[in-house]
Amino acid sequence: MRASHLEDFYSFLRFPSVSTDENYSGKLTECAHWLVEKLSGIGLRAELVPTPGHPVVWARNQHREGRRAVLIYGHYDVQPPDPLELWDSPPFEPVLKDGYVFARGATDNKGQILSHILGVQETIEQRRELPVNLHFIIEGEEEIGSGSLGNFLHQNRDALKCDTVVVSDTGMIAPRTPTLSYGLRGVAALELKVTGPKMDLHSGIYGGAVANPATALAQLLATLHDREGRVAIAGFYDRVAPLEDWERKAWQKLPISPDKEMLRETGAPALFGEAGFSTLERIWARPTAEINGIGGGYQGRGTKTVLPSYAMAKLTFRLVPDQKADEIIALAEKHLKKNLPPGVTLEKTAGHHGPWYLTDPHNRFGQAAQRALQKAFNAEVALIREGGSIPIVSDFRNILGVETLLLGLALPGCRAHSPNENFPLENLDAGIRMNKAVLEELAV
Amino acid sequence: MRASHLEDFYSFLRFPSVSTDENYSGKLTECAHWLVEKLSGIGLRAELVPTPGHPVVWARNQHREGRRAVLIYGHYDVQPPDPLELWDSPPFEPVLKDGYVFARGATDNKGQILSHILGVQETIEQRRELPVNLHFIIEGEEEIGSGSLGNFLHQNRDALKCDTVVVSDTGMIAPRTPTLSYGLRGVAALELKVTGPKMDLHSGIYGGAVANPATALAQLLATLHDREGRVAIAGFYDRVAPLEDWERKAWQKLPISPDKEMLRETGAPALFGEAGFSTLERIWARPTAEINGIGGGYQGRGTKTVLPSYAMAKLTFRLVPDQKADEIIALAEKHLKKNLPPGVTLEKTAGHHGPWYLTDPHNRFGQAAQRALQKAFNAEVALIREGGSIPIVSDFRNILGVETLLLGLALPGCRAHSPNENFPLENLDAGIRMNKAVLEELAV
Repeated sequence: MRASHLEDFYSFLRFPSVSTDENYSGKLTECAHWLVEKLSGIGLRAELVPTPGHPVVWARNQHREGRRAVLIYGHYDVQPPDPLELWDSPPFEPVLKDGYVFARGATDNKGQILSHILGVQETIEQRRELPVNLHFIIEGEEEIGSGSLGNFLHQNRDALKCDTVVVSDTGMIAPRTPTLSYGLRGVAALELKVTGPKMDLHSGIYGGAVANPATALAQLLATLHDREGRVAIAGFYDRVAPLEDWERKAWQKLPISPDKEMLRETGAPALFGEAGFSTLERIWARPTAEINGIGGGYQGRGTKTVLPSYAMAKLTFRLVPDQKADEIIALAEKHLKKNLPPGVTLEKTAGHHGPWYLTDPHNRFGQAAQRALQKAFNAEVALIREGGSIPIVSDFRNILGVETLLLGLALPGCRAHSPNENFPLENLDAGIRMNKAVLEELAV
Repeated sequence: MRASHLEDFYSFLRFPSVSTDENYSGKLTECAHWLVEKLSGIGLRAELVPTPGHPVVWARNQHREGRRAVLIYGHYDVQPPDPLELWDSPPFEPVLKDGYVFARGATDNKGQILSHILGVQETIEQRRELPVNLHFIIEGEEEIGSGSLGNFLHQNRDALKCDTVVVSDTGMIAPRTPTLSYGLRGVAALELKVTGPKMDLHSGIYGGAVANPATALAQLLATLHDREGRVAIAGFYDRVAPLEDWERKAWQKLPISPDKEMLRETGAPALFGEAGFSTLERIWARPTAEINGIGGGYQGRGTKTVLPSYAMAKLTFRLVPDQKADEIIALAEKHLKKNLPPGVTLEKTAGHHGPWYLTDPHNRFGQAAQRALQKAFNAEVALIREGGSIPIVSDFRNILGVETLLLGLALPGCRAHSPNENFPLENLDAGIRMNKAVLEELAV
């Protein structure tokens, strides 16, 4: 690892580019300027594009007719560092310990996007030019929902025309195991409010004569699943595409122990999920109905003998191919209406939703990515899906009409979003090699 | 109504004797001193008894051998007046409107206890002495749980020896309908916490592989009742004494429309309760299991896609003769343990409990009370139970060994604990007549 690479990494990490807190706005702009300078310094045409939120950094090499065009996406904003007292060292003063750099944003996403920048730097130094027409798009609002990115892509759709997108903002299933994520779950939100009396009532004076909305809500929510963990909404699974054989086999052979790791990471007393599926299948390829929050009545210390006026729950459904968010929300609403206990009313408010994502890892670009990963890590490539949702991937598909290669460099213990976030220098190095290899392979 | 009675009422109401707020401590003591002065002024031996909380006012006439002893209980503390903006006139500046006095404490409990004081005053004025040995016990902590009263009763057990207790702190079922409450429900509290993962998890990354504690809690709470509103805990009804025939008949003949009034008062979309019982039976004579509060995960605006680490619920059971609080809590705990869904753990914390109360309205003192009510109101007496719990009644039974006559003067629209609390002068007058009659009847 060159000393200058480490210096770049530390400089990048020292910006407290916390997008969730408006007080840091100036720091985000400083960080974006640093990126423009860095990208210009390695020979790209870099610019800072203002948005209603934080600026987008856009850098290109000299494009030439007839070459493949690749868009590498990343973000320079980071999560807040709180709670500060749980950090072993200050979050914006990077330190190296046992080969790991500790700082907020080390993994998510500064280390990962920087490895691409440094890979491009090395290629240009060694060969004077890149094998592809390249775009770097590095935004400052990923941690707050990428609100300005869609508009930016729309406005620059023609200039951004490309063959594929490369994103390193996902995980590796284990150290030194190169990982290509080819699928993501979608999400659809629904909020429920069950109302009974017009105000909280004295549970002694009125209890027994009117329905308790918290009880009614519990009874209603209990109808969402059967005893074996299946979602009990009629039609919920109708469009779910079965896992392909090669996927099931590939996942069984992954060099990890998902059940053991899931228990250790979550601290749950036992695993539980839809009957008939493995842990990886449950989180990567099966839809869910989760209660994200529930509330009603008195939640303070001690006892307050109220019969609550209302109780509410926030639900999200994770969706998989080929489910449709609108359809699932409609089925859920129908189910809830049908199962509403007597004596209460129900309000339903559909919230945000984002589609699932699935691409074929065996197509031309997927194969190129696999060759690059194999070359960079000198190990067999894990082909996985992920359980979360990455809305920008759908933006790239819907606005630019291209698929995304998710080549994650985050390790299971990287503590993204948590205190003591870290990134191994080994992965910065591997990321540099991966960038060089993937641009080369995609050029073919 | 004498002008001086109204002046006394206004003076009493002007003290902001809010026991829930420590800033008002001085005002409570001032109010207690005013009572001592008033009670001394009418010829009783009155004293202010300090407690670790607010003082107890204790007043006695000259006791004589061979007479019945009666203890009249009331309280001079009041609920906070908030929210102030909902009052039509300042809560501690009493005003008379259409025969009703509006002020915090007008009904609960200053108007009611004052009618007893004024009744005693008139009897002494007219006859120079009372027909019974009398104790007034007027405390200042009723709205905060009567924490000092039990100790006061214990310490003065011998001096307070009496035949019966009279309390006017309950309701009349309708205007001009004298009401004797002979039963109260008990209460037993149980808090539940269902825990899954050791911290909130990302519902995309983990959802599907571990149990969701909010879902598990909902499923658990849904087992507490059957679809017809019965509590589904095995053994829950085993000790419930059936309603006596005379009660069922008496309640059916009450000059009220309980269902219509319950709907109007609560604003609930429909009534709902245990199958096979009327509204009055459900709230006065049947036990319940109510969720007073439920909470877990994200309850703020919008969506946060967490799989909560835990979810909790606060339960109280209302108990009726001959249920035992400890036994019900044990049965509930057994039920919850048995019905706990997989993948989570359950913590149970039993809270406070208080026994139900039931006395025979047809015994000697009950009959005396009925004659007095009939005489004071010149109307047929309603014999009812109430759904709430009044712990001091059990204190009187357990410490002094006597039953309590609940001769309430509160009207359904009195708005105790709410803005625009009020008490009709008609009831102050009737209360004075009732006091005179009840002491006379109890003396026999």
